[in-house]
Amino acid sequence: MKSDSAKTVRDYIRTIVDFPHEGILFRDVTTLFADPRGFRMCIDQLLAPYAGLRIDKVAGLEARGFILGGAVAHQLSTGFVPIRKKGKLPGTTISQSYTLEYGEAVVEIHDDALQPGEKVLLVDDLLATGGTAEAGIRLIERLGGQIAGCAFVVDLPDLGGRDRLRAMGMDVHTLCAFEGH
Amino acid sequence: MKSDSAKTVRDYIRTIVDFPHEGILFRDVTTLFADPRGFRMCIDQLLAPYAGLRIDKVAGLEARGFILGGAVAHQLSTGFVPIRKKGKLPGTTISQSYTLEYGEAVVEIHDDALQPGEKVLLVDDLLATGGTAEAGIRLIERLGGQIAGCAFVVDLPDLGGRDRLRAMGMDVHTLCAFEGH
Repeated sequence: MKSDSAKTVRDYIRTIVDFPHEGILFRDVTTLFADPRGFRMCIDQLLAPYAGLRIDKVAGLEARGFILGGAVAHQLSTGFVPIRKKGKLPGTTISQSYTLEYGEAVVEIHDDALQPGEKVLLVDDLLATGGTAEAGIRLIERLGGQIAGCAFVVDLPDLGGRDRLRAMGMDVHTLCAFEGH
Repeated sequence: MKSDSAKTVRDYIRTIVDFPHEGILFRDVTTLFADPRGFRMCIDQLLAPYAGLRIDKVAGLEARGFILGGAVAHQLSTGFVPIRKKGKLPGTTISQSYTLEYGEAVVEIHDDALQPGEKVLLVDDLLATGGTAEAGIRLIERLGGQIAGCAFVVDLPDLGGRDRLRAMGMDVHTLCAFEGH
């Protein structure tokens, strides 16, 4: 067992077998977020590549992206913009659908959440197929925002999300990777 | 119209009429969180009463409490613990039901999220009837945690949440109040 000072972000993440359904290895970041050293290391490492760059807003994907996004926005002294599942935002929204393994889902953003030209850092806990992240990017761009970067704690490279976002011209930053899904 | 430097937390909150259903005045904190000055002021004011006190963990109620909780935990260099709706947490949980206007709801916490004796600051955006907050407090106490305080951005005093939590012996801190609901 590693001493606390030797532990990496990856070491704080636990794997739950068969959640949310059989055959899935769920990478659980709550054990990372619950540890004071782990959480701080996570936020510092998420932000390291953007030091010195202009970032006007941080956008987070519901719901674990809210935990990260709140911390990141506070660290940068920017505002935070939530991207939520359909029907959760109270004001006037624009929406974007994306494909799931079975069926489709919709995410929304308030239509006045960004000013044209604002630089936005998109954050979430996990990059899998990249479907939700792509939908989030499209929402931000439809409001005239420019993506400064997309930062995730966990990459599941076998699911292709990184390649998908890079094909859109995105800068993708992840802290650790797990094989399989 | 107030200048930016004169604006209070309350001034950044907008009211959406008839959300989520007719007759409700929804107090929308997304406009507060989206403003860099508003968000920073909000986090600073949430934490002010706890300066110098021991806080081991910050717990946030899904979903807007995650945005605040992430920022507050990062500011304090503590860990963050999510309290989520039923079925969302991947590990072994304990659950607590509470009464809604029509029917009931359940919130959960990971059963290993806290160590007995840890001091926990509970945060959420809005204190209405206090039902969700009371359920969150019970989950924390069932794990042996001790509530250091309950901090909310908005108080709706007509709905009695403050009195309900105070009757449980809780320290309740809110930044602004709106009459009605």
